[in-house]
Amino acid sequence: MHFHIPYHSNLERYPTKLLALYHALRDSIVEGVLERGTRLPSTRELASAYGLSRGTVNQVYEMLAAEGYVDCRTGSGTYVAFRRSTRTSGAGAAAARPEEAPAYPLSPWSRRLGPPPGEPVHGGGEAPSSRPGSGAFIDFHYFAPDLSGFPREEWNRCLHAAVRGEPAARLMDEPAQGWEPLREAIAQYLRRARGLAAEPGQIAITGGSVQAIALLAQLLIGPGEAAVVETPSYGGFRRAVRAAGGRCIDAPIDGEGIIPAAWDARVLFVTPTRQFPTGAVLSLERRQRLLEWADAKGAVIIEDDYDSEFRHRGKSLEPLRVLGGEERVVYVGSFTKSLLPPTRLGYAVLPPPLVEPFTRAQALFEPFPVNLLEQKALAAFMAGGAYERHLRRMKRSYGRKFHLLSELVKRELGSLVDWTESDAGLHLFGWWRGGEAEYRAFRSAGEAEGVRWSETEAELGGQRRFGLYLNFPHLTEEQIREGVRRMVRGGERSGQRS
Amino acid sequence: MHFHIPYHSNLERYPTKLLALYHALRDSIVEGVLERGTRLPSTRELASAYGLSRGTVNQVYEMLAAEGYVDCRTGSGTYVAFRRSTRTSGAGAAAARPEEAPAYPLSPWSRRLGPPPGEPVHGGGEAPSSRPGSGAFIDFHYFAPDLSGFPREEWNRCLHAAVRGEPAARLMDEPAQGWEPLREAIAQYLRRARGLAAEPGQIAITGGSVQAIALLAQLLIGPGEAAVVETPSYGGFRRAVRAAGGRCIDAPIDGEGIIPAAWDARVLFVTPTRQFPTGAVLSLERRQRLLEWADAKGAVIIEDDYDSEFRHRGKSLEPLRVLGGEERVVYVGSFTKSLLPPTRLGYAVLPPPLVEPFTRAQALFEPFPVNLLEQKALAAFMAGGAYERHLRRMKRSYGRKFHLLSELVKRELGSLVDWTESDAGLHLFGWWRGGEAEYRAFRSAGEAEGVRWSETEAELGGQRRFGLYLNFPHLTEEQIREGVRRMVRGGERSGQRS
Repeated sequence: MHFHIPYHSNLERYPTKLLALYHALRDSIVEGVLERGTRLPSTRELASAYGLSRGTVNQVYEMLAAEGYVDCRTGSGTYVAFRRSTRTSGAGAAAARPEEAPAYPLSPWSRRLGPPPGEPVHGGGEAPSSRPGSGAFIDFHYFAPDLSGFPREEWNRCLHAAVRGEPAARLMDEPAQGWEPLREAIAQYLRRARGLAAEPGQIAITGGSVQAIALLAQLLIGPGEAAVVETPSYGGFRRAVRAAGGRCIDAPIDGEGIIPAAWDARVLFVTPTRQFPTGAVLSLERRQRLLEWADAKGAVIIEDDYDSEFRHRGKSLEPLRVLGGEERVVYVGSFTKSLLPPTRLGYAVLPPPLVEPFTRAQALFEPFPVNLLEQKALAAFMAGGAYERHLRRMKRSYGRKFHLLSELVKRELGSLVDWTESDAGLHLFGWWRGGEAEYRAFRSAGEAEGVRWSETEAELGGQRRFGLYLNFPHLTEEQIREGVRRMVRGGERSGQRS
Repeated sequence: MHFHIPYHSNLERYPTKLLALYHALRDSIVEGVLERGTRLPSTRELASAYGLSRGTVNQVYEMLAAEGYVDCRTGSGTYVAFRRSTRTSGAGAAAARPEEAPAYPLSPWSRRLGPPPGEPVHGGGEAPSSRPGSGAFIDFHYFAPDLSGFPREEWNRCLHAAVRGEPAARLMDEPAQGWEPLREAIAQYLRRARGLAAEPGQIAITGGSVQAIALLAQLLIGPGEAAVVETPSYGGFRRAVRAAGGRCIDAPIDGEGIIPAAWDARVLFVTPTRQFPTGAVLSLERRQRLLEWADAKGAVIIEDDYDSEFRHRGKSLEPLRVLGGEERVVYVGSFTKSLLPPTRLGYAVLPPPLVEPFTRAQALFEPFPVNLLEQKALAAFMAGGAYERHLRRMKRSYGRKFHLLSELVKRELGSLVDWTESDAGLHLFGWWRGGEAEYRAFRSAGEAEGVRWSETEAELGGQRRFGLYLNFPHLTEEQIREGVRRMVRGGERSGQRS
């Protein structure tokens, strides 16, 4: 292979082979040694030339592609995409004019933002491509809370009171961290509902919880650094890591959730209460192993407790934060699934060393509390007990739907899909038992019958697997029955035996 | 000087001497060649050793200090502050365990956030350290709009209507970019009030305008890249540049505003309508030169039109955006000074190439519109004409105070302070005519008399100058008279002759 990059000399400069290769390639591209349009060696060639694993080379190519330095064209190879701006020669004089500057001075960060997500986020978020009610489509793909049960009058009273409340006599004293009475109410709620002791000063209010996740990624992950993410997982974790310039270490899961390992990383995103999307509950032993890992590495765990409010039987295990993780665990929660859309509020319970950096980060983007009227309304709604009354009502209603759907899919579709045992949450998850072709035929047949659902793909135990998840809160019990009947007909139509 | 860093070899790797020195020092620190506690050479020594200007060395030390690599102790020198994590030796094997890892895995970005600002931001923001009304202090330092004139009932009606409005039938379809009817209303307002033609699709709604500024900096400025900032300027520009990892090129101003130059940068933050804080109006000829510079460099100008609503006489010049800068200028506006606190809404009118990156950046941190109830209320408030009626009323009231204060300070304090001629805005600015000791005596005497104001320091024509600015909207005409009387007494008390 006729291809020279300063990989060996970089080995002394960088702590990992991956970073040595990454910088060797990037510098060669930036310095113009590798010109735009040059075809890079295949991962196999490069791996064997430098004694690396193909996975490492692949990851480096992906990092460079994410930053716009190379283009990975499927089936055709990897090409240099970056054109160096020309400069006058002369050893290191002041920078000369780029004669061929890119059209716009966009930062590496802007290139890492990527297109908006196409996948559904937990708790919904994306608009449905088709809607329940339009025609007779039953849509398990789309997520929305059941609005019929929301105590709208009570909530609106709180909002109207927030509107009527005294205006700030002068510009606000409220910090970006959030409205103090709401932080107080959340602290009390967490103590009662999750056994989690936190001072209001450790709680920061954000828009949706995704805001907390994106800020935490930027605060904790430097360029090229690794963060561990469950596979499959909530896509927002990966988007946040990528935007921060980091790379994801894929952590496999099984029926007990994430499988602990001695990851070489200092950040972990995890959903222990109910793994997203599979619904697996992380065992106590694994929880302890995650905390030991974090202690040993000096790492931070971001524990996303995204729908622990909706537990349909039994009692949940303690959050990592409660199991001795006060220094090492950020507990992230959200109200978007339990309040009326479009209310967007979430929060992070921060370890003491992160309180100041997090609130500085909030203040950089907006020095005052976000969605303050809703923060004030929610503080009153919680303090008066209305929030927990609402949760109890919704739990009953969602619980009925949950049990109905669980029974139906296990009985009617159990031979096609391996449904995860779960005791909480607002969706059901299962792995398709067959192969890809059969799954795609099943999905098409389902759509023809007028039913759709969310899905995910993952490498599991060396095998490509397809996961289905069914969101049900917005559907009536009759719609749920009809949806399952259509799935069964889709199975028959596509030649599967259920 | 016994001090070796790879500066000369870096000259070939980096486009500027500054970056070569920066990376030479940083790499030596990170690699442990320069150990924690090592005293670095003085700027004079280092500059003469490598044939650099002291300004360059200074800037590099500041960049390293901002990132936490060094500590600049006043009067004592610059010391290495970073302790490299130890690792096993062995040429470049996979990363070994840091035995002395920093307590928390904070990113370089988190270290660049810096402490919350201590200086007043334009349009206020920081809480006052003492308040008007407590005792008989007259506070020209603190900024707040005059709440007495705000049509609170009309505004609250719009908010109540937004609360009562239909909830999203499902999760929201509204994009992070903002509520469409508000973007429509802003487009119409800008056309009428500023002669600025923009499609609603080019407008993005943010919290305060500072959110737009922070996102733009992160989108446009890569690590080590330069951005031009007026001196003195709104501190939010510098905080945003620093957080993005960039460095500021200080652009001097004079009585006509920023002095155009062939800056080696691709981003410029500027306040052409009314330079902050001096109030200077940028001449048409300079506006055109800025646009020519941007075209030649492929640069982006961020034009912050922070209080153009409050013009007390004459007509304002066209914004840069209107003078042919649609591709090169981001026009940033704010409602925080014209609405009731704590309403936080601002916006950016984006060049077409920035629309998608900006909305992706918004969506990373929060996929849905921020402060949506206020967005809906403001759309109705603007569409019904209430906003412009309110602006007209406030202009009359602020105009009276502005003319009163202008006359008084010129007549009573003109020999001490060189007041800037201005025709708009919510504060008055002037340069102290004397030296530092006199200024400090004057300020202390003023405080003893019960009056305070905002201030700034700047290097101007090779001289250290002190600027005073007086915010007046929250004060009554009688308070304004009394404040000036106290300043005059302070001048006499401190031995100045006015």
